[in-house]
Amino acid sequence: MTTRLGKYTVRLENGPSVLGYAAVVSKMESEGPLASKFDRISEDEMFGQQSWEKAESQMQKEVVELALDKAGVVSNDVDYVFAGDLLNQCIGSHYGLRELGIPFVGVYGACSTMAETLALAGIFVECGVGGQALAVTSSHFCAAERQFRFPLEYGGQRPPTSQRTVTGAGAALLGAHGNPPYVKTVTIGTIEDMGVTDINNMGAAMAPAAAHTIKRFFDETSTGPDNYDMIFTGDLAAVGSELMHELLGRETIDIRNKHADCGLLIYDREQQDVHAGGSGCGCCAAVLCAHILPLMREGKLNDVLFCATGALMSPLSIQQGESIPGIAHLVHLSNR
Amino acid sequence: MTTRLGKYTVRLENGPSVLGYAAVVSKMESEGPLASKFDRISEDEMFGQQSWEKAESQMQKEVVELALDKAGVVSNDVDYVFAGDLLNQCIGSHYGLRELGIPFVGVYGACSTMAETLALAGIFVECGVGGQALAVTSSHFCAAERQFRFPLEYGGQRPPTSQRTVTGAGAALLGAHGNPPYVKTVTIGTIEDMGVTDINNMGAAMAPAAAHTIKRFFDETSTGPDNYDMIFTGDLAAVGSELMHELLGRETIDIRNKHADCGLLIYDREQQDVHAGGSGCGCCAAVLCAHILPLMREGKLNDVLFCATGALMSPLSIQQGESIPGIAHLVHLSNR
Repeated sequence: MTTRLGKYTVRLENGPSVLGYAAVVSKMESEGPLASKFDRISEDEMFGQQSWEKAESQMQKEVVELALDKAGVVSNDVDYVFAGDLLNQCIGSHYGLRELGIPFVGVYGACSTMAETLALAGIFVECGVGGQALAVTSSHFCAAERQFRFPLEYGGQRPPTSQRTVTGAGAALLGAHGNPPYVKTVTIGTIEDMGVTDINNMGAAMAPAAAHTIKRFFDETSTGPDNYDMIFTGDLAAVGSELMHELLGRETIDIRNKHADCGLLIYDREQQDVHAGGSGCGCCAAVLCAHILPLMREGKLNDVLFCATGALMSPLSIQQGESIPGIAHLVHLSNR
Repeated sequence: MTTRLGKYTVRLENGPSVLGYAAVVSKMESEGPLASKFDRISEDEMFGQQSWEKAESQMQKEVVELALDKAGVVSNDVDYVFAGDLLNQCIGSHYGLRELGIPFVGVYGACSTMAETLALAGIFVECGVGGQALAVTSSHFCAAERQFRFPLEYGGQRPPTSQRTVTGAGAALLGAHGNPPYVKTVTIGTIEDMGVTDINNMGAAMAPAAAHTIKRFFDETSTGPDNYDMIFTGDLAAVGSELMHELLGRETIDIRNKHADCGLLIYDREQQDVHAGGSGCGCCAAVLCAHILPLMREGKLNDVLFCATGALMSPLSIQQGESIPGIAHLVHLSNR
């Protein structure tokens, strides 16, 4: 059963259990601070496939297999898979998951996809629509570069505000009954557009959505930063994180000492050429499934907010002079 | 409350009410058999905008306003909007709906989007996650042509199996309490890929998914074609419809005398140059909201199956030699 706490937030009274999770990444991510935590690292960015897009599909296929294996669940026992990615027409998910035979609900939330799929899967399981449901997403640096920016061969220069799309995938399986962590509360975001037009500054475009969603969550749950061990944002990276803090500051909310951004966790900005940090659907998906959920399982974190942010433009909308709308969805994960 | 009737099908025990609906189309659709039924027709395919993509966003904006108006509901009272479209990164929905301020759940289901959003909105309302929820989608012939096929100026020839993307949008508002029709049952499809690679024959690529979903629905509800007044498919058009009948025939299911395809209803294939018929997310969305739902309101149809089909490829996946995966979701609408 769910209880509406306000316009944006619902509490899942039982709280579906995170039964299993997995993260798959590639070379660049294996050289970052979380290297030892991923379930599978492919030094080959092609994942044995013929194209980057097929590599991304392969990642989704593998990450779901790993998550199910770790949960001891076979795909036939999963009632729904919620999935999406950044590629045009979400082909990472469609080709990667087509052999599963699980009822498929395709979503598009750009880099907010992991929170969106987790929220939908959580609500479906909570309400008994399904007993077990998967949340899956991915991104691939090379596929994203050629789709959103330039062919890699062009060697385009990127400004310091730009972010590097993570080559990675994450999958989490939720079930009605099981061990912690649990999905306790969900805040669904609205589309926020403050007029940012710089395609090389996604963090800035997404920061207002993150600030809105986090403020609404605190307001509607009557809680504050002190009630949580950590607050993770999706991929605001260096520039967007700072802007979000500034926007929250105007609402007299200070989450600085509880906040970490997945785009800053996955790479070492001093040692790796990633500009403002990581991005892409796979960024917070991989960090959630390799870092956050394991820390919760170990009891090192007990109450966590996971707020993934997405930039909802396309290369064409930018060419046509549009600004970049952002969105952020938030999931409260708890061991209690 | 929902009851699982099987692996694919859930019954919504109360059955959310369709409170309001609207359909917006353009010139070509206004020359077809359903001309008099649409809420708004724009002779201008640009809808007063500077690009076809912005025109598509404008359609979504207008169709939501019309649906809310007809239901006598203001956007502030809507708890969720489920929306998506065919454009890369679903910009039709993101830009069209960004000013609404309604919690936004982006989906990607290609031409199955209307059934997918209706299913999700129905489940959310049924389970009390929200009191009122919108299901919205659109497509635009010119935007789709240049994205999926050729620039219009190229004047590419199209084979008889090809379909014409409908320029249109549909929106339906669901609420927990209200008059019929009601959303009674939902079948979520799986990704089906029979190896069709002909990008000019989407109907064939989607037919297996439709056949699977319809058969599963009948099996899991222990009903058959006789239990329904009409069975509408999304946009299989002439070729796909015939293939679906053949596939269902192998399972000894005959829906021919109850079946109509939205891709065949919206245009007059004798008089209009549309090859095998209509397609696009907006095709079955506009037919649902301008034709099917009004017939139900008038009591001329009382039990209807609405099965929208989507082709989940992208131009790039086809260039890379992939086949076309299909999906079909089904919603049972009833006045009872």
